[in-house]
Formats: sequence, structure tokens, C-alpha cells
Amino acid sequence: MTYCVAINVDEGLVFASDSRTNAGIDHVSTYTKMHAFVWPGERAFVLLSAGNLATTQAVVKQLGQESESDGDSLYRLSSMSACADHIGHLSAVLQRQQAQRDTANTNFEATFIFGGQIAGSDPELFMIYPQGNYIHESRSHPYLQIGEIKYGKPILDRVIRRDLSLETAARAALVSLDSTIRSNVTVGAPLDLAILRRDRIDLDTRLHLEEADPFYRRLCERWQEGLMAGLSYLPRFPWEAAQAQQSAPGNAAVPDQVPGADQ
Amino acid sequence: MTYCVAINVDEGLVFASDSRTNAGIDHVSTYTKMHAFVWPGERAFVLLSAGNLATTQAVVKQLGQESESDGDSLYRLSSMSACADHIGHLSAVLQRQQAQRDTANTNFEATFIFGGQIAGSDPELFMIYPQGNYIHESRSHPYLQIGEIKYGKPILDRVIRRDLSLETAARAALVSLDSTIRSNVTVGAPLDLAILRRDRIDLDTRLHLEEADPFYRRLCERWQEGLMAGLSYLPRFPWEAAQAQQSAPGNAAVPDQVPGADQ
Repeated sequence: MTYCVAINVDEGLVFASDSRTNAGIDHVSTYTKMHAFVWPGERAFVLLSAGNLATTQAVVKQLGQESESDGDSLYRLSSMSACADHIGHLSAVLQRQQAQRDTANTNFEATFIFGGQIAGSDPELFMIYPQGNYIHESRSHPYLQIGEIKYGKPILDRVIRRDLSLETAARAALVSLDSTIRSNVTVGAPLDLAILRRDRIDLDTRLHLEEADPFYRRLCERWQEGLMAGLSYLPRFPWEAAQAQQSAPGNAAVPDQVPGADQ
Repeated sequence: MTYCVAINVDEGLVFASDSRTNAGIDHVSTYTKMHAFVWPGERAFVLLSAGNLATTQAVVKQLGQESESDGDSLYRLSSMSACADHIGHLSAVLQRQQAQRDTANTNFEATFIFGGQIAGSDPELFMIYPQGNYIHESRSHPYLQIGEIKYGKPILDRVIRRDLSLETAARAALVSLDSTIRSNVTVGAPLDLAILRRDRIDLDTRLHLEEADPFYRRLCERWQEGLMAGLSYLPRFPWEAAQAQQSAPGNAAVPDQVPGADQ
């Protein structure tokens, strides 16, 4: 399985992905699911992939090769949506080619998140389905997910807004990934994180975080502490006030405010 | 769809469930999925149900009726596991009976969480599968979920420990339900919450929380605030410290501690 997420905020785009692949529980490997296609100053794209590894690798390889030729390519197509359409077409064709040679009813499907910016246009995100069609993220739903999406969705639903800073959105993406990793063994570290700052038209940041990475470990620990603090900040049930006066210290002491909250 | 969760902490048991049912998207109704069977001082049980509503209602009805007779029943069986076995058997039989009359390939499956305490024994939780077999919660995994479980799992994985107070566990269960409701329209309020305090052998608390309930609304708002505070408490990326000195106030100011944290 896989979990990838991309977020579009006012300051730019955030991409994050795990790197666990498995073809059966006894065939677990690590492959990056994040691929960057960057022509600094002209166009900068990131592609996140989920699904059949042979399909996604073939798509990425062909996208790289054709960018050096004169035909349709990520480098030459006029818009992000034309690029998304191109990737979708390529993916669908490659899936069909493999299926024709298949003798074991294999699932060759692949799903992608494609995002980036072409100089002079806005940053955009697309989710590309196995059928080759695609959807665009929206202002009211500024993130896209592929793979094992449910565990990491609640935190995004609660905190992602267009006006978050790129770094805060990146931290939220890492928390969303960590939540998924903790709840599902088919998603695992190392994690890839990429940031495309609006109008910089280049890969601003790319981090590769191993499970033991001190920054990642500290982020996980602090999130855990923050959640416990959030839990203790929740309102008490009506009967607890009476109980607390008699016993359990701390049980009724709800702080008036969570200090450090984004105001 | 449905989402139900039960938690076993040192102080007792917490049960929580949503109440949305749907037979197709144009046939959405509200039914409680929480059923209590209580003989104060002798035994107190709560049953949470997911799956085919006709099956779960038939199981609950029969469990109630037979408790008044002299045969095997929740009132007379010697242990919690014997009761779980009895419910599983009943559910499997009722599913088969319905399937024999079926002409439309209907799914009659039902899944249950059964928990409670018999005087003189420990509180216990069981998950009963459609096949009638069941599992017991464990010390290292002290909660059980049925239905649409993924959205609400990360918060439980992160905060549930045996030594949480019953009320804190109950708040975590409500947050887990709220996370699911926000991310999936097939799970919805009103919510049912029940608490069985260890050795009290009675229904300690039962709350029915409508979506507009002031306590529930306040809990959701405070959780949201707590998450935003938790997000701002996360460590900054290395490059942010340098940036922050030049501009963006607050960007580098990570509090040393989340005040109010459970120590």
C-alpha cells in the first residue's frame, strides 16, 4: 500500500509520501513514490504515485525520456491540465499494454497526484485516476490524497486552510503520514517531503526522513504531547465538577486557553 | 455505515456509537446502535451493532425476550465469553434464516461489540464477527471498533492507555466519532455514549448527544483549538529559524511545553 498527500496553500505546494511497497506480505520493499521534474525558472512539477510499481516506474521513466525530445512532454505542454491529461493517457496506455501480456489477472492500476507550477500560471494540483481522467483540487478542499487515505484524513480536514504557511502545511502532512504509519503497517518510512514555493519555479525543499531521523522523531513526540494536551483541554462532563471537588486533582482543571494556539 | 467504539480502562468501560443508517443514499435514517442489558448489582452489558439493521434488531429483540425465560440468556450464562458466544451463534443463525428467504443477494451480515461486567468478574470487551466467532480486547490494545473504523483509529492509537480516567477515555471516544463524522457522511449524529464504572455493575452514565448539543459542540470546538495548538507546537524546520529572525512573527516561537498536558 501507499499513502501520499499534496496540499495547495497560498504560499505554494506541499507534497509528502511514504516509501513502502509490498507485493504480498513477504515481499516488502522501499521505493520512493515522489518524482520531481524541474526546469528552474520555467516549470517545476512533482509527481506522487500509488498502485502497481511496474506501471508507475514505466510512467515516470517515459515522462523523463520524452522531456528530452521535441514531442509532447511535461516540458513542452502548454498548461498543467494538459500535462495531467498527458500523464493520465500515458498511464492508461501502459496499463493496457501490461494487461495484454498478463496471464494472472494482475491489477496494473496506478493513481497519481501531479502538481507544480508553470512560470506565469498559478500552482495547481491534480489527482489522476487509473482510467486516465483526473480532478483538480478546489479552494474549499485544498488537498489531495492517494493510497491508504482514511487514517490521515481527519487531521487534514481539521487543520488545512489556504492561509496556513507552507511549513505549517508541511508539518500537517507529516503528521497525517505518521498517523497512517502508526495505524497501518503497509505504509512506512522513510518519508519524502517536497515544498514548491509559489513563483519560485524550483524545488524549494526536498527532505528524505528516515524513521530514526531526529527531526521526524521530535515531530512525532511533540504531536503526541500536543494531542494529550488537547485531550486534557476538552470540556469536563457535568458530573466531573462535583467529583473533582472531593478527589482527583487535575480532573476539573480545564485550562481556559491552549497556549501557543494559532490565533 | 456505522462507527462504534468501546474502550477498556482500569476504571471501567466506555461505549460510543453514531446513529446513522442508510439503505442507499436516498434512504438515510437514525437508529440507535447501542443497547443496554442491565440487572443492577448482578450484571451490566452494552451491545453495539453494525451491519444489516434487520439482523441487528432481530438479535437485540431475541436477547431481550430470552432473558425473561429460563433458558440460555445474557442473564443466565455463566461468563462474558459464554454470552459473546451466545450472541454470535444467534446472529449467525438469524443471518442464515434471512439469506434462505433472500432473492436479491442481500448482505445480512452483522458485527457487534459486546462488553460489560458480571459481578465478581472483570469488565470485558468482545468483538463478534458475522460468522459468530469473536475476539477479546487485549491489554496492549484496549479498544475495539466496528463499522467505518479507519478515520477514528489514529487518535485512539495515540492516546488510549489503560490508566486513562473513564471520562478522558469517553472524551477520546467522542473525538474519534467526531473525526469520523467530519470525514465520512455515512456516519452521523446523534451520538450515544455509555459508561460502565468497574464494580458498580450498573449503567453509570448514558448520554444521547444531538449534533447541536452544547457540550458536544464545545468539545468539538475545543478539540479543534487543541489541534491547532498542537500543530503550532511542532518543531520548526531548520531553515525557519533563519527566516523568522527577518520576518514572520510567531513562526519560530515554539512553546517549550504544551501547558495543560497530562503529566
